[in-house]
Amino acid sequence: MESDIRARRDYQGGQVGSTSSSEANPRAVKWWGWGLESKTYPLDDKPQFWPYLLETLKLAKLNECSRVTIEEVRLPPCRLNDGTLARLKRTVGADVSSEKYDRLTHSLGKSYLDLLNLRRGLIRNPPDAVVYPEDERDVAKLLSFARANRISIVPFAGGSSVVGGVEPIKLRGRKGAVTVDLRRMKSVLDVDAFSLTATVEVGISGPELEDELNKRGFTLGHFPQSFQFSVLGGWIATRSAGQVSTKYGKIEDMVESLTLVSPTGKLGTKAVPASASGPQLKQVLIGSEGTLGVITKAKLRIHRVPAVRRYEGLMFKSFRDGINAIRETIQSGLIPAMMRLSDPDETTVSLMLSSQSATTKLGLWMLERLGYVPSRECVMILGVEGDPTAVKAERQVAVRACKRNGAFAIGKGVGATWLNERFELPYLRDVLLDHCILVDTLETATTWDKLEALHGAMKKSIEEAIAEMGVAGLAFAHVSHAYPDGASIYYTLVAPQVNGKEVQQWLRIKKAATDCIMQNGGTLSHHHGIGKDHTPWIKQELGENGLALLRAMKKQLDPEGIMNPGKLLVSS
Amino acid sequence: MESDIRARRDYQGGQVGSTSSSEANPRAVKWWGWGLESKTYPLDDKPQFWPYLLETLKLAKLNECSRVTIEEVRLPPCRLNDGTLARLKRTVGADVSSEKYDRLTHSLGKSYLDLLNLRRGLIRNPPDAVVYPEDERDVAKLLSFARANRISIVPFAGGSSVVGGVEPIKLRGRKGAVTVDLRRMKSVLDVDAFSLTATVEVGISGPELEDELNKRGFTLGHFPQSFQFSVLGGWIATRSAGQVSTKYGKIEDMVESLTLVSPTGKLGTKAVPASASGPQLKQVLIGSEGTLGVITKAKLRIHRVPAVRRYEGLMFKSFRDGINAIRETIQSGLIPAMMRLSDPDETTVSLMLSSQSATTKLGLWMLERLGYVPSRECVMILGVEGDPTAVKAERQVAVRACKRNGAFAIGKGVGATWLNERFELPYLRDVLLDHCILVDTLETATTWDKLEALHGAMKKSIEEAIAEMGVAGLAFAHVSHAYPDGASIYYTLVAPQVNGKEVQQWLRIKKAATDCIMQNGGTLSHHHGIGKDHTPWIKQELGENGLALLRAMKKQLDPEGIMNPGKLLVSS
Repeated sequence: MESDIRARRDYQGGQVGSTSSSEANPRAVKWWGWGLESKTYPLDDKPQFWPYLLETLKLAKLNECSRVTIEEVRLPPCRLNDGTLARLKRTVGADVSSEKYDRLTHSLGKSYLDLLNLRRGLIRNPPDAVVYPEDERDVAKLLSFARANRISIVPFAGGSSVVGGVEPIKLRGRKGAVTVDLRRMKSVLDVDAFSLTATVEVGISGPELEDELNKRGFTLGHFPQSFQFSVLGGWIATRSAGQVSTKYGKIEDMVESLTLVSPTGKLGTKAVPASASGPQLKQVLIGSEGTLGVITKAKLRIHRVPAVRRYEGLMFKSFRDGINAIRETIQSGLIPAMMRLSDPDETTVSLMLSSQSATTKLGLWMLERLGYVPSRECVMILGVEGDPTAVKAERQVAVRACKRNGAFAIGKGVGATWLNERFELPYLRDVLLDHCILVDTLETATTWDKLEALHGAMKKSIEEAIAEMGVAGLAFAHVSHAYPDGASIYYTLVAPQVNGKEVQQWLRIKKAATDCIMQNGGTLSHHHGIGKDHTPWIKQELGENGLALLRAMKKQLDPEGIMNPGKLLVSS
Repeated sequence: MESDIRARRDYQGGQVGSTSSSEANPRAVKWWGWGLESKTYPLDDKPQFWPYLLETLKLAKLNECSRVTIEEVRLPPCRLNDGTLARLKRTVGADVSSEKYDRLTHSLGKSYLDLLNLRRGLIRNPPDAVVYPEDERDVAKLLSFARANRISIVPFAGGSSVVGGVEPIKLRGRKGAVTVDLRRMKSVLDVDAFSLTATVEVGISGPELEDELNKRGFTLGHFPQSFQFSVLGGWIATRSAGQVSTKYGKIEDMVESLTLVSPTGKLGTKAVPASASGPQLKQVLIGSEGTLGVITKAKLRIHRVPAVRRYEGLMFKSFRDGINAIRETIQSGLIPAMMRLSDPDETTVSLMLSSQSATTKLGLWMLERLGYVPSRECVMILGVEGDPTAVKAERQVAVRACKRNGAFAIGKGVGATWLNERFELPYLRDVLLDHCILVDTLETATTWDKLEALHGAMKKSIEEAIAEMGVAGLAFAHVSHAYPDGASIYYTLVAPQVNGKEVQQWLRIKKAATDCIMQNGGTLSHHHGIGKDHTPWIKQELGENGLALLRAMKKQLDPEGIMNPGKLLVSS
């Protein structure tokens, strides 16, 4: 029984039924941070990192910030009484838990603000209960129950939202909030090797889905940085993008059709490659962030596991040169899997996070002689994968565009390192938080004509916002996810925490950055979504009539407004 | 003044103000058929065509069906009184006409049923007036006026709908119907050579838009068969697909952003390459068929005029072999501009419509010796265009897949002929109608696993429906618009008209074909849209909850239901 409970606490299964931490389970996940309890981000072999960071953040020494233990966390009491909980269990027929561990681990996502609160044990809005449905019928029964009983419903997939997408916001007039954890609904229902599609329940995690597909010779090609812990339903609900979206598309391009269970009923879209049967309802359900209902199932476009895969590094003399190389490549019509270009500061940070060998140092020294100046040089990871003929042509066009824009090839080692470490960086965030350092990421996308101006303005506005609170910080970025008409740009920002004003500090920076995005023709989000954190700007993003249209849709599918209140569009 | 009026009757400008036919104007368009009055489909050099058709349709001789002259057409009287018309003119400030010619030429589209009625002068639902706005403000004023005066509004772009999309359906409680002809709003507002986008008003026709883009070195890459007479706004409103959509995408892929003027206000989507800011409202406005408002402007993704272009023919021993070749090519990740595969009957018809030289005949004889049997052989046009490196790789993969599936290369001549004649076939329809022959086209799309079964079922159901009314007909098809997960299939059907029961005959065939599509996993439409003709199946296509969602959107943007009533979703 104990081992059964422990198994269910793995990141690959629904978490239920334990309130103790489990040192013995190597796959147990952190309730207070990213990923596995047993893992961290190793810095011992990167001796340059801390000195570089201390200097950049103008810190004399590393501080230490502790966090509470799970025993110290006090949750607000469950607002659903035993009678309601018993009825809920009986009606839905699935596991229902109101235990502390389940409520705590579904109370917040993985944003900087979430981690701040988790580490301090400040849990304002835990769900009153967590339900673990086994199938679509359970979900439908749950929604009917919630409708009849004035209970809010928060769909929960991997829980890796960085925009406050899974926090159960309290609404007046509601009896309580129930989170629906979808991770038991993870069957691969069908793989069609002919049409290259897979029909999958949405509770499946990245690794589970890829394993299932890989063993049949296929891949989805969706690898967000959260890949190891995020879940299909969350990807679809938030319009997620993977690291190789340039080739494989964003998740909205991968979904051939899907099923949504809304409070007013089930809605399925037709599984066809394209259609002219009116407005595309699929694109309304994708990105609905749990506010219209629960996405339960999707038919996905899959690919053969690439026969060839090649990732390599290139160095540019300037960010502009690198951007031009990406634009020229993508506009040629041949699309590599990835062209990920770091700006000069991110290039420096990457270097500080690499185990610099003597060869690397010699290489950098030589590059500098050739005019690749550290304060301006930009590293790109170019990745191609697929059919040999395609890969050859794609790489040829990309390398040609890079060379034309002054790139110096720095070899496959850089590519291999990136591939190896591509899901590791979130672990570093926990390490930095242990040392009282604010670290957050944010992203946008815009058209090529606006990209460089946006980049400059963003860096300035974030660093100024950091400085206004009396500390020295850094914002650095990479361009990734390229399109013929533009690209996304992804920022990481680092600053010493302002003691006692950690939340205000973050809010100030977030506001400066987001206002800057809106003023410079960026989209409010390219792949993180809106959640709770971006709602102050959603009206500006969609326009008053756009938001009204969204609200009309919500009213149709969720007339009582029980679905994920306070997210995307602020419910009344 | 007379010349001014004549100029406005060109297909490139809004038609207004003349009721006489204009023999003198070589660019005048047919009010009763397809395209230019001065043009027809030449058959003199295709001596095999008529004998083949007579034999296939089991006709002893060609019959003749006359049509009425414009003078013989009697329109129902205009329901708007002079006072209302004067107020309309004053309020909108644009040209308003209630003259016969304008009402007649905006009364119907170009479907078989439309042409049947036009040729007989049976015009049940002409608009009471036609308004020619000059800009977005005119449109907004018109919609306000219509809202206040209980007048229906029908947006009209090229008027080439083949599904009854532009007929002003009468609604109880309405004072009348006004068609808004958008063809004066045709400015190219901006071309961004860096981001490869063009911002364009929606009244621009295919040739006008391509001319404007071509002279700057660009193309949209959108060439529906209606290209010469259809108009951007119509493409967007109906989710149009061009002949090379396999490479360039359908129109919904080309629209980066758009503006809609609805009765409740203006709605613009953000011009970014991709976004995770909630549901994609753009994909709701695209395909809305005038039922939510008037699309006035779009920012389009454009391409450089292809440096290389190569179209060629290949012959397959069976339809299945050809389908496999397309599927294998597209699934490789390298996408040619076009792979258009005719089934055996369409292959025969194409041959009958070609000017068969002695060389062609020798070639066919040789092919037959090699096992390409006329009753089973299928011709494919393979087209590649773009950057030389891309074209080379794409063609290599495609030709390899074709050869692997038993294709015999029949040369570039076939490709050149197809390119030359690709917009001409609609003219043949008028010739056939002159000889009392029913001819219609319809299309769908499905996934690869269902395509062959759908094709067989469709051919059978259409030919049976034709036979049930005592005549012998033929349905033939081609696969085009390929996707990694499926393709569209496009049918042409031909039969002798059943005298006195022409409409019932068509309805019976249409019902059989559409029921067959729905039963075999096809979409109700891949690129023609829903209009009036497909509304009986829209609930089956979208599901009850899907249709309810669509209705909720309409209610938000068009609360009085003035926009294009009777189309897409049947308004209450």
